[in-house]
Amino acid sequence: MSPRQFAISAADVRSAARTIAGVAVRTPLLEYRFLNEGVGGRVLVKFEGAQIGGSFKFRGAYNRLARIAEADRGKGVVAWSSGNHAQGVAAAARMLGIPATIVMPADAPAMKLANTRALGAEVVTYDRATQSREEIAVQLAHERGAVLVPSFDDPHIIAGQGTCGLEIMAQATDAGATIGQVLVCCGGGGLVAGIATAIRDVQPDVAIRSVEPAGFDDTARSLASGRREGVEAGAVSICDALLTPMPGELTFPINRALLAGGLVVSDDEVRFAMRYAFEVMKLVVEPGGAVALAALLAGKAPAVHGATVVVVSGANVDAALFAEAIAAR
Amino acid sequence: MSPRQFAISAADVRSAARTIAGVAVRTPLLEYRFLNEGVGGRVLVKFEGAQIGGSFKFRGAYNRLARIAEADRGKGVVAWSSGNHAQGVAAAARMLGIPATIVMPADAPAMKLANTRALGAEVVTYDRATQSREEIAVQLAHERGAVLVPSFDDPHIIAGQGTCGLEIMAQATDAGATIGQVLVCCGGGGLVAGIATAIRDVQPDVAIRSVEPAGFDDTARSLASGRREGVEAGAVSICDALLTPMPGELTFPINRALLAGGLVVSDDEVRFAMRYAFEVMKLVVEPGGAVALAALLAGKAPAVHGATVVVVSGANVDAALFAEAIAAR
Repeated sequence: MSPRQFAISAADVRSAARTIAGVAVRTPLLEYRFLNEGVGGRVLVKFEGAQIGGSFKFRGAYNRLARIAEADRGKGVVAWSSGNHAQGVAAAARMLGIPATIVMPADAPAMKLANTRALGAEVVTYDRATQSREEIAVQLAHERGAVLVPSFDDPHIIAGQGTCGLEIMAQATDAGATIGQVLVCCGGGGLVAGIATAIRDVQPDVAIRSVEPAGFDDTARSLASGRREGVEAGAVSICDALLTPMPGELTFPINRALLAGGLVVSDDEVRFAMRYAFEVMKLVVEPGGAVALAALLAGKAPAVHGATVVVVSGANVDAALFAEAIAAR
Repeated sequence: MSPRQFAISAADVRSAARTIAGVAVRTPLLEYRFLNEGVGGRVLVKFEGAQIGGSFKFRGAYNRLARIAEADRGKGVVAWSSGNHAQGVAAAARMLGIPATIVMPADAPAMKLANTRALGAEVVTYDRATQSREEIAVQLAHERGAVLVPSFDDPHIIAGQGTCGLEIMAQATDAGATIGQVLVCCGGGGLVAGIATAIRDVQPDVAIRSVEPAGFDDTARSLASGRREGVEAGAVSICDALLTPMPGELTFPINRALLAGGLVVSDDEVRFAMRYAFEVMKLVVEPGGAVALAALLAGKAPAVHGATVVVVSGANVDAALFAEAIAAR
């Protein structure tokens, strides 16, 4: 199967790594003896909360924005996002001197709204129940002649997120570990597609699995059926970062070809993982960032030879929700 | 000034590093663009929350326990601790197959009591107001023929904590940073003495500063007066890990010779630092682990050429206290 049929190749991820080198954070790959003992195998935790903007999203955003021609930067960029892509785009735009406008749900976490504004972006809010963020963003971009920056269905975005996979491989080697599987959160599927492209190019025997919240298991069902399935109407989840309605046009072909399957976790399993991360790992993790850990702790990831890598993808969570999640019960 | 007059030398720290290699965690040295911008200089954060037992204490405990002769291990070890040394000793003892008894205050954080027991140690509680933990521990050790493991005033403990300083130097070099100063929490002074011994042996121009909570500023005052000063009776602080009454007999001569001075922070400054760590750094930090960051954020650390290293020394904090600290106000 030729990589040419996909939106990106491993070479694109390596190119993205050169673009973000010295700008993005090389986030730590952590190991906890207590977690290893509990799971009965070696677990490596890639902590993207330490990335600029508090999630992996800066990787793709910077890789995308850095490729806008100098002459086109003045007109700015427009993106829509529940909050993490917003912060990634805002941070990258500020560094590159590009004006940024972000369309965000009015009910996005307060921290995500505040951080995006603090990074200098103009925030346009919309009502998730009655308005289409894509329409608002497309119209804004059209009016201003700005570049639209999708949150996952863009080759440079996917390639940028894939740099996380390159770091995982290098850091696992440094730790003397052989990777057996990688568990990655999945909204639109950009992060897992990028990671799968990067890792399976070098280590084709590694199983990459997407993890989604119950009710938003569109990628898991699409992987099972072989075609893009949408979420059922009316689903709710605390994983505000992963409420994507359908796999991406560009991400799904990659994920269909490269993933070993999709796992699904409940909000209670997510809360348990957030509490575990607080108590044992001493990390702040947002709900959407905790799904891969939740799948592991709930025993939903198959046993594998080699280490299981868990990507903790983001940590932008309001204090009240975090306090509720970590409270003993 | 010859190092022979001190309890340890830099060679002892290097020996400790060999002892804990492959056993202790090489904790990450993190950098946050937002923090650098806020402070107006480069800041590197050594996150000891990721260490076994959730604080730096495992370093010294393992280095001490590993040096107990095989023949003497069966009779066990006895330690006293408000909680972090307890967990460090319990974890090291379990790995080495040594029975551990820990004398802890009855009002220690619930997480610290629970974790110490979960690590297989026998916990003996005492009333801080009416009983002497040293007396209880000494008597227990005497009865059982066990080895007493002090929390700071022991050469192997100090040398073990110093391994944190060796890692800081190597990781700062990897990050392309030149260290200007290192801010380190201080209870009995073992961590800061070990770090100062390790770093100033190689980089004598680095300023090492202790940081203590207000009311427990015995090291700051002792550094100023040149002799060991005790705390005033009746002082209180949320920094449960740093309520030591007086600098150590072994640690203070080292700190007097090697430190650039002592900083002091209020409980409110500590809470602010915990909230900042939650919001910006995405790290769980306990009150005593946040004092160095608190001093930096409160503008109490002098401006220096080169990077400021902040040691975040521990993260064992009960959910209720953490929730209160991170709540917006």
